Amino acid sequence: MKTSLGAVTLAFPLPAFLVGSYDANGRANIMTAAWGGIASSDPPCLSVSIRPSRWSYAAILANRAFTVSIPDSRLAAAADYAGLVSGRDHDKFAQAGLTAVRAEKVNAPYVGESPVAIECELYKTLDLGAHTLFVGRIVDVKAEEGLIKSGGGLDMAGVDPIVFNSGGDYHRVGESVGQAFAIGKSFKSPK
Amino acid sequence: MKTSLGAVTLAFPLPAFLVGSYDANGRANIMTAAWGGIASSDPPCLSVSIRPSRWSYAAILANRAFTVSIPDSRLAAAADYAGLVSGRDHDKFAQAGLTAVRAEKVNAPYVGESPVAIECELYKTLDLGAHTLFVGRIVDVKAEEGLIKSGGGLDMAGVDPIVFNSGGDYHRVGESVGQAFAIGKSFKSPK
Repeated sequence: MKTSLGAVTLAFPLPAFLVGSYDANGRANIMTAAWGGIASSDPPCLSVSIRPSRWSYAAILANRAFTVSIPDSRLAAAADYAGLVSGRDHDKFAQAGLTAVRAEKVNAPYVGESPVAIECELYKTLDLGAHTLFVGRIVDVKAEEGLIKSGGGLDMAGVDPIVFNSGGDYHRVGESVGQAFAIGKSFKSPK
Repeated sequence: MKTSLGAVTLAFPLPAFLVGSYDANGRANIMTAAWGGIASSDPPCLSVSIRPSRWSYAAILANRAFTVSIPDSRLAAAADYAGLVSGRDHDKFAQAGLTAVRAEKVNAPYVGESPVAIECELYKTLDLGAHTLFVGRIVDVKAEEGLIKSGGGLDMAGVDPIVFNSGGDYHRVGESVGQAFAIGKSFKSPK
């Protein structure tokens, strides 16, 4: 039996993206964003939703660039910290003991300690009210060498990403429950 | 040491949303979407990216409504199936043994067996090239009663959502690694 929760912003799973940008002073900054994901295949796009009040907002518009670093479970506290304070008055990289690495193809920094970093050029924006959706064109994805599987893609256990539970806690990703584009074939013929 | 993978559509974690709509014949349909998430707080919005060739595309535009059902790990094969065939020539609900429940507030069906269902009115669209971003205004979220935590939010282990690994497999969500808006406080004062 289902109960109505009203018009709340819940979905599962949500990520904990670390969105990197350089501010007007050239200082590397990150913010945590649980509201974002891949948005298109051609051009390859990623979206993140950001409030205009955030320090990263003007920075991304000015540089037309941002990165998304994927924190692993060891970086959960650092990722949480990056959502608690503002880059306006905090050097989050220094304070959280993270390394700001200048992206290769866009004018933005990523988190050196993250297993995966995504470099984006700002492609489109969409005003949604409280948040603006920033759509980035993905120009490169970088991953730690050992995580790349022979058949392509990345090893999920190796990436060890964190999943955000709205209003709750962060979780690791657990065991595999089946191969994509494969386990559903059992339903293809009528029973 | 990081290696470049090029401009690929990878991010972690990605969801496996089941997007529900009624087609022009009034038949309930679902499609699987790994590219989507929460997009704004006010109005509460959710986005999913859909190719114009998909059967759901015209259906959502015609009804200005869709739902997102969150599959749990027992529904992984059904979720995979919904991404393998088209509603143009398959009754996916029947074939996967799922129950199409008419949403209460919008003209779209959701998956009765899903622990969580999100009812959306189409709010905005954004053409991104190969995919169009559909932004829905969340009008209600329904969850199985036993999953609602006393402090608000839902019990992650109870929801048991699946995480999609691009080009790979589906995973369950694992153990908690800390409380959000809490574990990062350790970095707030200089060491």
